[in-house]
Amino acid sequence: MNFKVSRVPLLNELLKVSRAVSPKSPVPTLTGIKIEAKDDTLYFTGSDSDISIHSYLKKDEKVKLEIIEEGAIILGAKYICEIVRKIDDELITIEIVDGALTRICGETSDFKINGFAAHDYPMIDFGKPEQSFNIDSDLLKLTISQTIFATSDKETRPVLTGVNVKCDKNLIYFVATDSYRLAKKTIENKDNLSFAVTIPAKTLNEVSKTIDDNDTLEMAVNDKKIQFVIGNTIIQSRLIEGAYPETSRLIPTNFDYELTVNAHDLLSAIDRASLMKNDGINIVKLSMSADKVEISSKSQEVGSANEILNEASFNGNRLDISFSGKYACDAIRAISSDIIKISFSGDMKPFIIKGLEEESCLQLILPVRTYN
Amino acid sequence: MNFKVSRVPLLNELLKVSRAVSPKSPVPTLTGIKIEAKDDTLYFTGSDSDISIHSYLKKDEKVKLEIIEEGAIILGAKYICEIVRKIDDELITIEIVDGALTRICGETSDFKINGFAAHDYPMIDFGKPEQSFNIDSDLLKLTISQTIFATSDKETRPVLTGVNVKCDKNLIYFVATDSYRLAKKTIENKDNLSFAVTIPAKTLNEVSKTIDDNDTLEMAVNDKKIQFVIGNTIIQSRLIEGAYPETSRLIPTNFDYELTVNAHDLLSAIDRASLMKNDGINIVKLSMSADKVEISSKSQEVGSANEILNEASFNGNRLDISFSGKYACDAIRAISSDIIKISFSGDMKPFIIKGLEEESCLQLILPVRTYN
Repeated sequence: MNFKVSRVPLLNELLKVSRAVSPKSPVPTLTGIKIEAKDDTLYFTGSDSDISIHSYLKKDEKVKLEIIEEGAIILGAKYICEIVRKIDDELITIEIVDGALTRICGETSDFKINGFAAHDYPMIDFGKPEQSFNIDSDLLKLTISQTIFATSDKETRPVLTGVNVKCDKNLIYFVATDSYRLAKKTIENKDNLSFAVTIPAKTLNEVSKTIDDNDTLEMAVNDKKIQFVIGNTIIQSRLIEGAYPETSRLIPTNFDYELTVNAHDLLSAIDRASLMKNDGINIVKLSMSADKVEISSKSQEVGSANEILNEASFNGNRLDISFSGKYACDAIRAISSDIIKISFSGDMKPFIIKGLEEESCLQLILPVRTYN
Repeated sequence: MNFKVSRVPLLNELLKVSRAVSPKSPVPTLTGIKIEAKDDTLYFTGSDSDISIHSYLKKDEKVKLEIIEEGAIILGAKYICEIVRKIDDELITIEIVDGALTRICGETSDFKINGFAAHDYPMIDFGKPEQSFNIDSDLLKLTISQTIFATSDKETRPVLTGVNVKCDKNLIYFVATDSYRLAKKTIENKDNLSFAVTIPAKTLNEVSKTIDDNDTLEMAVNDKKIQFVIGNTIIQSRLIEGAYPETSRLIPTNFDYELTVNAHDLLSAIDRASLMKNDGINIVKLSMSADKVEISSKSQEVGSANEILNEASFNGNRLDISFSGKYACDAIRAISSDIIKISFSGDMKPFIIKGLEEESCLQLILPVRTYN
């Protein structure tokens, strides 16, 4: 293998596929990026065996690719990315000099690093699963940000560490829950598909970071894997096995109380009240009546906080309800509406947060019992 | 105690003195900030008993201070800073309500936090030491940045964890060394003083962060403490006891080799070559002859790097010398000259880095022995 290529496009692809690489992988070849030079194209692959990213760089005016000898190599992701980032020249030459010893050089910089033979890289099938649909990348990014934070970070119930995506005719539901709160986003789809998969939160995080312009992207699923095709890039991930809990019956539909409030005001009031923590956990109390809406919190050790929400309007009898300040802030931020509507059915019943006149995103929070 | 004051100036003073506060101090009152309201002025004190910071806020148009009742209190630094930072109003009221229970409130926010009685705060003497001189704050900031990185972070020889400041008639020498490298800055002074003290690196760090405009500041020392008076603020610190090593005889004065090189080029070449690490330590080799100057490095595990410095000029016979890439980068960055001059007296002798035509800052590095 021996080729010359522009440094910046090369670096971009290396950084992109390196996102899937885990530097501490027990499989040595997986700590590297596989680079293949073939047919006037460079192919890049990075994988931690859960997530795999594949991309390519074709010869064009900007890329200035010149393949002198075709071939493939695996180079340690950490080293190849840093070397290409730091070399101060416009063109980079990469050449296998002896076995897996590879030379990477610019005009005055000359590196030789020990790689791995390309045939030692695990076989990864990047074939496209049968059910596929297009989605606007901004909408997918928004959907991920509105749900992913509600996934669980505990491995005791693996299925809760992912976002469940269920397609039922013309609607796709994205649901995440850690069993104390739930986030649900509904989006429309024309393709009339039917599937239900649970995607690891980590995969969605990577996808979200890789999308940076308002392209359309393609999602393709079967019961084993999911693929996101974004321009020249495929991000592919295993799915989380196991039945996802039936969440729709957890979401109440009848409410006796309703609070309409400015999201920014509520957020800052909860944020301030959250300064009073008990053992690092911040529980806030929302006290609502027709003429006064207050947020308060108490910590035996530190003291107490009380916040008056002047611009809030409340319908219903007096209600006091306590909940995690952090969960509430996460949910309010995810909704990203100026005015939000919170619907309650009792002081120990889950409550629902939505944007005013915005039904596609729903946030549910379970209250907590307090004794003061 | 009961006063009203503008939020922003209050926050600035709280943040400033909180820099000296260690949240994990074994003395509970030292986890707090002492606030005293007296004679139309607020006084603030924070201390970890090594460093103490004292400042004040006088009544004026911007500060809008109104003292309703004089008094003093100690409030947990973490809480009072966060509360004042997050309250959304222009004016803040702070009032002792019961014993040490203190109310902090804005228009809609109302906090009550448990403080400590002010008389429990340790007595700190902020009296000014006898030997004092003025120094331009930009020059002090530069001097700190040019020396502090060379202090030791190991407590085995406490005296090396500080910067030694020695005044001999009209010159003040700032010296730091961890015994593998040394940084020395010489500045002029008119006051004809004579002292030698070792200031903890941590103190200088805090001083450097507190200076933000080009004021003149006052430094005052005796054999127990050092004071920096910056506008309304006193930063005071204990000194490190023990004899500082006599460093002047370590600095060679006769040289057989001299390299003149663009600082940026050398820095990036060393930076790139440093990617090849052995057990996390990056040793680079500088090979110089009349017609070629190169930086190289080798790692058994990773590979090798070679960098050619085209714009360098070297006087002397061929010389190969190995040293820590990190130490060299620290030293070159500290000098902040476009062109630097490196003077050698042999492959195992300490070498000197200076800016071209800039004698006030000297960096010394000890070479290391390599076997390849």
